[in-house]
Amino acid sequence: MTFVQRLATGAERIEQHLAEMLAKYGPQKGSRLNAAMAHALLGGGKRFRPFLVIESAALFGVPIESALDAAAAFECVHCYSLAHDDLPSMDNDDLRRGRPTVHKAFDEWTAILAGDALLTLAFEIMASESAHADPVVRAQMVALLAKAAGGRGMVLGQMLDLEAEKRNEPARPSADHIRHLQGLKTGALIASACEAGAVLGAASSVQRDALRTYGENLGLAFQIADDLLDAEGDAATMGKAAGKDAAAGKATLVDLIGIENARAQLAEAVRCAEAALAPFGERASPLIQAAHFAAKREH
Amino acid sequence: MTFVQRLATGAERIEQHLAEMLAKYGPQKGSRLNAAMAHALLGGGKRFRPFLVIESAALFGVPIESALDAAAAFECVHCYSLAHDDLPSMDNDDLRRGRPTVHKAFDEWTAILAGDALLTLAFEIMASESAHADPVVRAQMVALLAKAAGGRGMVLGQMLDLEAEKRNEPARPSADHIRHLQGLKTGALIASACEAGAVLGAASSVQRDALRTYGENLGLAFQIADDLLDAEGDAATMGKAAGKDAAAGKATLVDLIGIENARAQLAEAVRCAEAALAPFGERASPLIQAAHFAAKREH
Repeated sequence: MTFVQRLATGAERIEQHLAEMLAKYGPQKGSRLNAAMAHALLGGGKRFRPFLVIESAALFGVPIESALDAAAAFECVHCYSLAHDDLPSMDNDDLRRGRPTVHKAFDEWTAILAGDALLTLAFEIMASESAHADPVVRAQMVALLAKAAGGRGMVLGQMLDLEAEKRNEPARPSADHIRHLQGLKTGALIASACEAGAVLGAASSVQRDALRTYGENLGLAFQIADDLLDAEGDAATMGKAAGKDAAAGKATLVDLIGIENARAQLAEAVRCAEAALAPFGERASPLIQAAHFAAKREH
Repeated sequence: MTFVQRLATGAERIEQHLAEMLAKYGPQKGSRLNAAMAHALLGGGKRFRPFLVIESAALFGVPIESALDAAAAFECVHCYSLAHDDLPSMDNDDLRRGRPTVHKAFDEWTAILAGDALLTLAFEIMASESAHADPVVRAQMVALLAKAAGGRGMVLGQMLDLEAEKRNEPARPSADHIRHLQGLKTGALIASACEAGAVLGAASSVQRDALRTYGENLGLAFQIADDLLDAEGDAATMGKAAGKDAAAGKATLVDLIGIENARAQLAEAVRCAEAALAPFGERASPLIQAAHFAAKREH
């Protein structure tokens, strides 16, 4: 099985599990809230974060069935963040994964509430007994997810990103500042998804740190690749408007350091991600491939 | 000490603890996100839900210090919901507790993100070791809070409320429908705050059910009192625009059944709340007073 097949097979499994979680903990089917949550959560996406949870956990012998709940919780947080970031008062996007964004398919208040409910759902899933038999692990996982998602993680990253954009300053932010905010906005959740696999697998703290380091470099690679795509890509391969960052006056790392330097930093991030996995040997091959995939993806 | 003094003393204690939690788990002081979260979270409010957590836990001998984290988590959820409900695309309120709402003091995207971060903070606090020594309890509390707050609780209630309003239907909803949506929007979090005290106190399932029943009737009393205030009150005592529900074309229970019937149902709810606490005898007196307070409050 190639990596792309492995990712696609995982995505199908996750898709099904997300639908089950929505049916189990979400609002009644047929309700507007259920439909809006389903629109935000189901029907597309690479399911990259769940894949990372599952494959990281697999390093420690955790079967996929035992990692699905935690994987789904990470995806709920990711999907809620997309629904809110797309809102008119934030990034004002009409398209997401080639489909109308939640506020376009429904309306603004529905998109806000669907996002709120998905964020809450993530924690309900993570705290449930099916997420892990050991309540210590469940509580740790809730804390890990909350830290990555909240005011010191993803939400702060989105805030800094929008602040820079809305302030419309002539002065450009430094490359360090951009790396910092991207690390929060995109990197924190990716790194924590990898770390979550280690927690599920009752890994040693050394192993947990290794997964974290892998995840941080993976997140960085993911984000540089995204910037490169935005600079070079076109709408067809991205499924969203290209050049959007430039149009929005957003400074990206590519603007500041140039395409060649960005490519070099991307290669270095992939190298560091790979190096962090060295102790796991051959078994880490899906995660190593994931880093290469993140660096080379076209959307 | 009178009940009002007891509530005020508790509110001071909670206020201080909320500030500590924000400093401990929130974004850096001085940042825009920290300021917006502080605006939504601090500086006012009766802190009624935290009071319920603390007093319910006290029934089982839990000292206030051991209930503060859980109490703060409930208040974070309450404050996030106010910040989002006040948004232009939802209730479009300019004032809250006599101060500008978050999107008025800052702007819309900041209010959405501050709300998101407060909701996430609630779960981070609840999952932390300081919330309870026993991880089983922590995981249960996260699940309890998530269930009350999410797509089968508070968010669903807000959704149904807005749906009825935005649809602008000539057909009036039934009294049952209004009671259902208010039970979700306001009642679920109040009832779960009471139940949370029982969970913290390692109560028996019979005791936990009793607290839940108390909380459900308290929530009902709270909401009927709110409707009566809206129908009779004025802006001075409410700290927000009175008659707002009528102006928004929202049908309230009072519209449908009249003031006298609403008063009778309010008295019945208080009676049921009190009855549920009978097994706890004299010790439950602060909670009984809380029910009377909720029924008679002026804002």
